[in-house]
Amino acid sequence: MSEQRIKGIGVSEGIRFGKAFIYGAPAVEAAYPQRIEPEQVEAELERLEQAKRQSAAELKTIIAKSEAKLGKDKTAIIEGQLSFLDDPAFYGDIRSQIKRKQASAEQAVQTVLAKLSALFEKMNNAYVKERIHDVKDVADRLMSHLQQVFYPDLASITEPIILVAEDLTPSVTVQLDRSIVLGFVTRVGGETTHTAILSRSLGIPAVVGTGAAFEQLGHGDELILDGTEGVIVLNADAATRSSYEARQQEEQSAAGKLAKYRLLPAQTEDGKLIELAVNVGMPEEMREGLVDEADGVGLFRTEFLFMNADRFPDEEKQFAVYKQLAEAWQGKPIVIRTLDIGGDKELSYWDLPHEDNPFLGNRAIRLCLNERELFRTQLRAIVRASAFGTVKIMFPMISSMQEFRAAKQLTLEVMDELKGQGITFDEKLEIGIMAEVPSVIQLADRFAKEVDFFSIGTNDLVQYTLAVDRMNEKVAHLYDYFHPAVIRSIHSLIQAAHKEGKWVGMCGKMAGDPLAAPLLLGMELDEWSMDAASVTKQKFTLSRLNVQDSAKLLGDVLDLDTAEEIRQQVKAFHAARFSE
Amino acid sequence: MSEQRIKGIGVSEGIRFGKAFIYGAPAVEAAYPQRIEPEQVEAELERLEQAKRQSAAELKTIIAKSEAKLGKDKTAIIEGQLSFLDDPAFYGDIRSQIKRKQASAEQAVQTVLAKLSALFEKMNNAYVKERIHDVKDVADRLMSHLQQVFYPDLASITEPIILVAEDLTPSVTVQLDRSIVLGFVTRVGGETTHTAILSRSLGIPAVVGTGAAFEQLGHGDELILDGTEGVIVLNADAATRSSYEARQQEEQSAAGKLAKYRLLPAQTEDGKLIELAVNVGMPEEMREGLVDEADGVGLFRTEFLFMNADRFPDEEKQFAVYKQLAEAWQGKPIVIRTLDIGGDKELSYWDLPHEDNPFLGNRAIRLCLNERELFRTQLRAIVRASAFGTVKIMFPMISSMQEFRAAKQLTLEVMDELKGQGITFDEKLEIGIMAEVPSVIQLADRFAKEVDFFSIGTNDLVQYTLAVDRMNEKVAHLYDYFHPAVIRSIHSLIQAAHKEGKWVGMCGKMAGDPLAAPLLLGMELDEWSMDAASVTKQKFTLSRLNVQDSAKLLGDVLDLDTAEEIRQQVKAFHAARFSE
Repeated sequence: MSEQRIKGIGVSEGIRFGKAFIYGAPAVEAAYPQRIEPEQVEAELERLEQAKRQSAAELKTIIAKSEAKLGKDKTAIIEGQLSFLDDPAFYGDIRSQIKRKQASAEQAVQTVLAKLSALFEKMNNAYVKERIHDVKDVADRLMSHLQQVFYPDLASITEPIILVAEDLTPSVTVQLDRSIVLGFVTRVGGETTHTAILSRSLGIPAVVGTGAAFEQLGHGDELILDGTEGVIVLNADAATRSSYEARQQEEQSAAGKLAKYRLLPAQTEDGKLIELAVNVGMPEEMREGLVDEADGVGLFRTEFLFMNADRFPDEEKQFAVYKQLAEAWQGKPIVIRTLDIGGDKELSYWDLPHEDNPFLGNRAIRLCLNERELFRTQLRAIVRASAFGTVKIMFPMISSMQEFRAAKQLTLEVMDELKGQGITFDEKLEIGIMAEVPSVIQLADRFAKEVDFFSIGTNDLVQYTLAVDRMNEKVAHLYDYFHPAVIRSIHSLIQAAHKEGKWVGMCGKMAGDPLAAPLLLGMELDEWSMDAASVTKQKFTLSRLNVQDSAKLLGDVLDLDTAEEIRQQVKAFHAARFSE
Repeated sequence: MSEQRIKGIGVSEGIRFGKAFIYGAPAVEAAYPQRIEPEQVEAELERLEQAKRQSAAELKTIIAKSEAKLGKDKTAIIEGQLSFLDDPAFYGDIRSQIKRKQASAEQAVQTVLAKLSALFEKMNNAYVKERIHDVKDVADRLMSHLQQVFYPDLASITEPIILVAEDLTPSVTVQLDRSIVLGFVTRVGGETTHTAILSRSLGIPAVVGTGAAFEQLGHGDELILDGTEGVIVLNADAATRSSYEARQQEEQSAAGKLAKYRLLPAQTEDGKLIELAVNVGMPEEMREGLVDEADGVGLFRTEFLFMNADRFPDEEKQFAVYKQLAEAWQGKPIVIRTLDIGGDKELSYWDLPHEDNPFLGNRAIRLCLNERELFRTQLRAIVRASAFGTVKIMFPMISSMQEFRAAKQLTLEVMDELKGQGITFDEKLEIGIMAEVPSVIQLADRFAKEVDFFSIGTNDLVQYTLAVDRMNEKVAHLYDYFHPAVIRSIHSLIQAAHKEGKWVGMCGKMAGDPLAAPLLLGMELDEWSMDAASVTKQKFTLSRLNVQDSAKLLGDVLDLDTAEEIRQQVKAFHAARFSE
């Protein structure tokens, strides 16, 4: 077979060689017989029984392996799946479909799955509804044994693989043993999806958004994954292989060179100290040693605490997490962003109505201001945690002054309440906002008088400023933070904030981009918050920059008309400093 | 029954009394028998035959009535529906389902409809796919006779009614005899939907977005529709009735007072002449006499020419329309906007892929720059029409300088081509852009050097600046063009444009709002383009305003923090001038 290249979006750098593991529903033959003859019933029941035995054995193996690795909660889900195999409403009904209706075993499984799905669907309880996934998983597993096709079982992976999937949801990634995943490949997705964030924080190379070409990847195929360029190579020939091996070695030696910056403070060539913070959310992102590498947490995404749960976490549960975070960072500032749900982020137990344009819809602070009790609970938990470190509160998706005032007012009420209850907290706790809606840029001078700080969310700010959904493959090429309108927006926000003595952070992807660094330095961005994997590299970048040249570059760039021109100029500036 | 009020959004002013006509699928009983006994077959076939006779008679009546009113094209659709009643694959198969499978007539109709739907769906031809709507219409009509329930037939309406529907699509409204529609009520929708635009241009009062309360309206109910306040009154008591009668009289006398401004130029109290233009698109909007009332067309929406068709209109067809428009306006400027498809606007014959956030997706100029031949055809037709009047070209959804340059470049190529072919056109034809994406506001000084003019599309500009989908009921309350970020955006754009000697128009809803008028006057907006129904009222408004006071109001408003404060201040200013 000849060599083949599949192009996608490289969202986490690095080159890896490995076997593809295709994750998805098993490839069951659609055309199995629906009915059997009366004399076949006994044999069919035995066929089913065998599939059950194999399924049960597999599930038990997973349980045995997973308790240590995944924890009790996740193991309970697998145990639930196992119990369906003895459930009269599931397994019993499948048998009875074969015996009484002379259904084939496959047809019987599908019929019972459909019946239970319809039943669960009707229940008015989101948690119960969600359980249909477990029934589906068990049914899929039975089908795979009945048809003797491969069942892609994440928990069964024992040797290093490149995981290939439609997309990686949090519930999939939680089942993974990260130590054996060499890389990720997905069909959908873009720079700022869950897969991208997760893979960057874990330092696992990843290519997303491969589109239709995705179909060409087969289970067990030997792949070269190039997360830097966003390429997958299938059936690589010898020349390609050795060139990638060489590049892999280069990358490793470059990583070695960076290593010495890991624990140093971020400092420019001319000695200016920069506050370099990290974005975290998923427990996986808080890797060991991170506290020593970064100056704090510029963005703690609380939504993962809500997403990896089967109901709203109560005040105590949230408090425990925020307190642990505050303590772990030993007084370094941590910015906790209040719930940013809606848009593309959903909760399994909160059935929000469908929206035609979710990115312009009922999300984040809009949702929280409509759900005061939910919001109040989170605010109480955060404010209480402020007694254990340097905690700051940040509201997402603020688009008007009233929204900020309403959210701040509620925070002050919560503080009063806690004071009345004799609960201590940091009374000087800073309250700030995400700058991600264009109206905040237009009104920056006004906001600067009332907020304690801004943190620029470049991902959404670019999206709204250019009216481009970054997840939409058709227009993703228009999404560019080097667009002069974006550069001007960021620059004018920082100027307006500094005029009122307020600090500005940035927690979008731009903050961790070495190419963007001289512009941000030129603008005097106060706090740079990025995914953990970018910290060391950005320290190295800053060590080669100085304030004066960066300010000059910024001035030149502000005169340009297009993103292409800006990118070109920034690249030339960069090349001159990082040539050797 | 006691009086009941249903609240919606008033999108076209005026009060009307009338009977509700509910338009939608007939309310067929879900629980008809699926099977019949063998001895019932003959009777069932006769029952079907009778439903067929009734359906055919109705369709023939519609055809007879509609040829004059709807034109050949639309009549052909109804004739197509009639022919299905003799089609073996439709009517023949329904009979055979009854005879051979002992299906009930209802079940037989549904089975055949499902079979044909699946068949049509598979065809790779958008036009054929669309025909399934016709089959569905015929099937619905048969069902309504089988079940003896009411079939809501737009073409059958003969006396004045208030049309109540889920929503009004262009294909529905084209079937309407406008002279007998007193008002519109829809369940979905907002200020800037098709229903809203249409009803305002026709001067028919309308309330949209009534939501769940919509279900309470029954066919034939006596309603009071208040398009000014956005209210529907059901079972009005005598007091309510007489108060609405009084208000209706007041409105009529106010309209009488305005009448003298209809043919006057728009002029402020202190004698400044204002260029007042209209937005048009649907043929229905070009009502008689409009040319004498307005100073031109500030926005010609070409998409309706594409939407009311079953394939892309070719160059000659488009040229004929644009030429007719240019000639009709007798040298007054007309701004033709190139195709603004995508987002919420679809073409039946162009199957664009689903997008998660269509408002941030592949729409308008983005689509046109990817479909060069389509775009070139339209540009040729527009440029050719420029020989017959004062035509200007406007590109929608421009977000970067490259997009404008690429679109302008193509226009210049088209001009060269026409010149080579010896076809005359206006060589000084102006080329401008919609200002509706926030990046254009940020880069206004740059754009002003290259474009001939801007036209502010407030509807989209507000949407992106505030990250609010105006069609989403959950967040529609956040959508407000008095938001200080929007006011500043418009103001800074106008300043930047004037600095380069370029003119600025506005074609969003704000231009026709009397409350917004003093602000726009204060900003020195050059061209005000609005729906036809607003022109006379806005002339009256302007006659009571003067430049100095308006500029002072603008200055005061630019110091305010919130939309509420601005609205309050503007209202007070307005009240002082329009009290008597």
